[in-house]
Amino acid sequence: MSLRVGVVGASGYTGAELLRLLAGHSGLEPVVATSREFVGRDIVSVYPNLAAYAGRPFDELDPTVLESLDLVFLAMPHGASMALGARLAAAGTRVVDLSADFRLTDAAAYPEWFGAPHAAPEWLGKWAYGLPELNRDEIKGHQTVANPGCYPTAALLALAPLVRGGLIETDSIVITAASGVSGAGRGLNTGVHFSHVDANFKAYTVTGHKHTPEIEQELSRLSGVDVKVTFVPHLVPMPRGLLATCTARLASGVDAAAITAAPAEFYASEPFVRVTTEPPETKYTAGSNVCHVWATADPRTERAIAISAIDNLGKGAAGQAIQNANLMLGLPETLGLPSEGVYP
Amino acid sequence: MSLRVGVVGASGYTGAELLRLLAGHSGLEPVVATSREFVGRDIVSVYPNLAAYAGRPFDELDPTVLESLDLVFLAMPHGASMALGARLAAAGTRVVDLSADFRLTDAAAYPEWFGAPHAAPEWLGKWAYGLPELNRDEIKGHQTVANPGCYPTAALLALAPLVRGGLIETDSIVITAASGVSGAGRGLNTGVHFSHVDANFKAYTVTGHKHTPEIEQELSRLSGVDVKVTFVPHLVPMPRGLLATCTARLASGVDAAAITAAPAEFYASEPFVRVTTEPPETKYTAGSNVCHVWATADPRTERAIAISAIDNLGKGAAGQAIQNANLMLGLPETLGLPSEGVYP
Amino acid sequence: MSLRVGVVGASGYTGAELLRLLAGHSGLEPVVATSREFVGRDIVSVYPNLAAYAGRPFDELDPTVLESLDLVFLAMPHGASMALGARLAAAGTRVVDLSADFRLTDAAAYPEWFGAPHAAPEWLGKWAYGLPELNRDEIKGHQTVANPGCYPTAALLALAPLVRGGLIETDSIVITAASGVSGAGRGLNTGVHFSHVDANFKAYTVTGHKHTPEIEQELSRLSGVDVKVTFVPHLVPMPRGLLATCTARLASGVDAAAITAAPAEFYASEPFVRVTTEPPETKYTAGSNVCHVWATADPRTERAIAISAIDNLGKGAAGQAIQNANLMLGLPETLGLPSEGVYP
Amino acid sequence: MSLRVGVVGASGYTGAELLRLLAGHSGLEPVVATSREFVGRDIVSVYPNLAAYAGRPFDELDPTVLESLDLVFLAMPHGASMALGARLAAAGTRVVDLSADFRLTDAAAYPEWFGAPHAAPEWLGKWAYGLPELNRDEIKGHQTVANPGCYPTAALLALAPLVRGGLIETDSIVITAASGVSGAGRGLNTGVHFSHVDANFKAYTVTGHKHTPEIEQELSRLSGVDVKVTFVPHLVPMPRGLLATCTARLASGVDAAAITAAPAEFYASEPFVRVTTEPPETKYTAGSNVCHVWATADPRTERAIAISAIDNLGKGAAGQAIQNANLMLGLPETLGLPSEGVYP
Repeated sequence: MSLRVGVVGASGYTGAELLRLLAGHSGLEPVVATSREFVGRDIVSVYPNLAAYAGRPFDELDPTVLESLDLVFLAMPHGASMALGARLAAAGTRVVDLSADFRLTDAAAYPEWFGAPHAAPEWLGKWAYGLPELNRDEIKGHQTVANPGCYPTAALLALAPLVRGGLIETDSIVITAASGVSGAGRGLNTGVHFSHVDANFKAYTVTGHKHTPEIEQELSRLSGVDVKVTFVPHLVPMPRGLLATCTARLASGVDAAAITAAPAEFYASEPFVRVTTEPPETKYTAGSNVCHVWATADPRTERAIAISAIDNLGKGAAGQAIQNANLMLGLPETLGLPSEGVYP
Repeated sequence: MSLRVGVVGASGYTGAELLRLLAGHSGLEPVVATSREFVGRDIVSVYPNLAAYAGRPFDELDPTVLESLDLVFLAMPHGASMALGARLAAAGTRVVDLSADFRLTDAAAYPEWFGAPHAAPEWLGKWAYGLPELNRDEIKGHQTVANPGCYPTAALLALAPLVRGGLIETDSIVITAASGVSGAGRGLNTGVHFSHVDANFKAYTVTGHKHTPEIEQELSRLSGVDVKVTFVPHLVPMPRGLLATCTARLASGVDAAAITAAPAEFYASEPFVRVTTEPPETKYTAGSNVCHVWATADPRTERAIAISAIDNLGKGAAGQAIQNANLMLGLPETLGLPSEGVYP
Repeated sequence: MSLRVGVVGASGYTGAELLRLLAGHSGLEPVVATSREFVGRDIVSVYPNLAAYAGRPFDELDPTVLESLDLVFLAMPHGASMALGARLAAAGTRVVDLSADFRLTDAAAYPEWFGAPHAAPEWLGKWAYGLPELNRDEIKGHQTVANPGCYPTAALLALAPLVRGGLIETDSIVITAASGVSGAGRGLNTGVHFSHVDANFKAYTVTGHKHTPEIEQELSRLSGVDVKVTFVPHLVPMPRGLLATCTARLASGVDAAAITAAPAEFYASEPFVRVTTEPPETKYTAGSNVCHVWATADPRTERAIAISAIDNLGKGAAGQAIQNANLMLGLPETLGLPSEGVYP
Repeated sequence: MSLRVGVVGASGYTGAELLRLLAGHSGLEPVVATSREFVGRDIVSVYPNLAAYAGRPFDELDPTVLESLDLVFLAMPHGASMALGARLAAAGTRVVDLSADFRLTDAAAYPEWFGAPHAAPEWLGKWAYGLPELNRDEIKGHQTVANPGCYPTAALLALAPLVRGGLIETDSIVITAASGVSGAGRGLNTGVHFSHVDANFKAYTVTGHKHTPEIEQELSRLSGVDVKVTFVPHLVPMPRGLLATCTARLASGVDAAAITAAPAEFYASEPFVRVTTEPPETKYTAGSNVCHVWATADPRTERAIAISAIDNLGKGAAGQAIQNANLMLGLPETLGLPSEGVYP
């Protein structure tokens, strides 16, 4: 018998990916799928790929109904989850929030990075940070989980083995990362026009990306010291996929072999992290919940380079949300989650 | 308890897609996966997306082992299946052959279209043509099935409702179709170089594509008359996906409404055909076993236009092969086959 | 000393391509470049590729100024050119209109295909149809020229040698064509979102594309009989490029060799048509004013297949407009027009 | 009257781009165009985009003929230019070598980075480094010029204003860069198969790219101290375009405004460098010889970020080679070089 779950914001790319994955999940039944824009309209008329939902319309958002579910996924824009997340949390409903609204513990970070104060600051720090590879135990027992951002997921999984092991100088971290276009969402602007994006590559929000404080918060937690990072995101002409290229100075006395060996040791028993022998490529992760990780060191410049690849909508969003839900609900962690990417 | 199957030619794109789908199939266990080029090498070193096969090498081809299996998928180049297919057929082993080697019933077609006579012509006509939507009953009882080509799958599913219903003149059929690049296989030549293909569109083998006689054979069977078609394939700068745009003169007295209504009636109970309300788009089928079909008529020119979209590696190859295997083995027809495309 | 020209609608893709080509044209000086949306804003802030226009803003549209120029290019949406085109025509100003507003001679076609009656029907039939390869002499002496659509340019150049020579049955023409996304313009809608278009292929406006009556009008003129065509356009995931695949029954007694030879004879002295020995590929024409043409016949089905490739923004729009302007102004026809495509 | 030039290796992507640009260059006449692979074959049969070369075959390589020319472009693979470059240099012929063979002054760098000792080490240090924006005067008077690599061109143009001005700490430079696929050349391997590259992003040669010592040599020259850099190149699914994202710690006391202002001051009079107000995008440079440069600083992390975009085949190879040739031959520096990119 399946548990009853809801997807709020099911017509965005992340919400639709949740619906896709839930269609193949034997333990979770998506009984609610809301959309502001398309309420009442057939799901398959908006997403003709979602054959399992034929004949079924998008639902209106009704908090009372949501409170009665076994778990609710919130896939709304940043800022929009604050009120509803707080309400469901107070009602005792299990929630996985895919926005940034409950990821940061410091209320001051919201006006600084998101342009507005938090609407429910009393809840900050009370949600578990939903990166199972680093925080599994806390997630298991938690009612509410803040699902990580796509860039933080990739960057943290690349850096964690080096930071936890004290192998790099944490004041020298430079992360350049690159995402497929779905990361920008389904909304329209000149920057997502095919004619503009195709055969184009650029950096964006070079010093102010909203994922920066999240990366810094979790690296600080991992290392025990206050970490600041240079984080420069880029846009790749591809729909899905995200690569994080992370470099940092080697800690004193650390040799290249220690860097190369660290990921395999750190992730030895992880079902969704695959340590590769070559630099990761995003395409192999498409449609899956897998993260590929690899690290090397350059003795010439005494810097480590750790690289990770994910599907930004999979392990970077919807896949990880379901992994968290599985943990919260006591289901097998891998249930319903593809470990095979769609290639080519 | 899973049935034991083998994949011969598992390192090609079609073979690797079979492995991907079999990893998620609860009734079939791929106990053999052969590769001439990569025998002995780890499957995940060649296809890092296939996490389920970690630690497992490609096997050598051993016909005796294959004969002992519950079913063998042959995913070899055209011509290469003839001998092995005949041997397994003679041994009583169930086989789904994904090449063209057992699709045509007329031995003379092989020298004409494939450049060489057939090596086992006694078997021609004895294999079932594996398009379940048109030929399900024959497939169910058959030991050996010839899996259709990607273009014939799409073209036949688009045209069948019109041809069976006598709605079009079968001597006026023009099919232009377009495929993603994976249809050309994993082999290297200037024509698949990224720098050449990207932002490029062209027709190829304009009057001599090997799928032509297959389309004509099955349309002739459907209509009861000898059908010839103009078939012009094109190459689209995308990895997967295939669209068939089929036009023909309306039969005398047929009106537009009959054309528009035909697909929905014809495919009312089909699990893997979705009749759309807008012209199909290939992307919605990516990674799935679904075919999207749509038809309209132009009263001004008195021609019908029927369009279908598939994933050339899914319903156009590996997905359909598994659908056939399910039917042959008495498993639920949809077992292990995704009906949701990966989008965007 | 350069002639003074204006570009009305210079911030659309076609207008911007006119500006790009005019920057390298030694005989024409773009002294006016209007934009409704970006008036007063620096051209390079909207099109950073147009380095030659650094420091220069988009102009307001002032008809009086336009009347004083040696020639005006109108690159506005369909419908928007009617009034201004008529005014400039009446004022004696030379005009090349890139919209469909003056292409059709039959006023009744406008409500039928464009949804509204023509605002200046008295001018229909008085503008030259600007396809130099078919209509050079008329263009040379004309004050006003209607620049052909991108699909008609490709389809007519493919079919003209066969139609003029009486080599095909004109009641059996089926044209399927495919265009890059820039053909849909710079405007935003879900259908041009990168995440949707990438790795996608579809047909659109399957029986009602606005270019249909234009193709029929010119084929009727070429053949002397009333021609109707089945025309199905498709969208390719690439920014530029257009391929027209045209098929028709061979006229009685025509053999394959006549079809194959026709284009080379027809275009022997044309500077911007290149007859190829292989089926054309769009990529080779990118950024140029060249059309590649090729034809073959299938004796098996007794149909001819003629294929052409252009850059939809080049020979399909801005390049051809400048070719027309050169002819109208007595300049060398090829002046300022690239004959080399940007490849790869 | 045009000067007579030769292109050796004219059938590679870089050589073909030289031919394309030379077709529109009024001062240089490409009288020789050699190809090992295609000697005797029509240029347009290999590159159908190069209409200007219709009827002309690729030439055999004849050093005596080359010695008689006004200038020779060598567009051969690394290593292959050594002998011919030395011979032409000794003969007094003007040469622009597009390989790395004469870029490095330290003979020991060749075995270390290129795997083999230099065949003509006596010439190292005697060729001018052909980055006009940094080295114009030396190029003007020189007989032999080593054309920079694509990555060094972009990285040096991004970093030069900061390094020359002493604005950054040169021991902290991290360069991550990303190139379109044409940078890997026309040769075939699995890594350039469309089905693999499309919708894929990866890093490659993470610590050992051959352009590293070139970047370090020129940065050392610019700064006067020995510079080592971390350089991580990536591959983008696009045919052309290259972006360099360079970060470094701010020098003591330098504020953000100094970083932001540096590029505009440094490149005030440069015809082919455009300082942008937003982070550069590769697409705007396609087909042109222009480099877009932009810089900012993050006071929070005290690092500068400088970003540049070029067409790797334009300013990154063939365009720059012609710019150098213009300087060497006393022609206007910008002659025959497009400053407008082809967009979209």
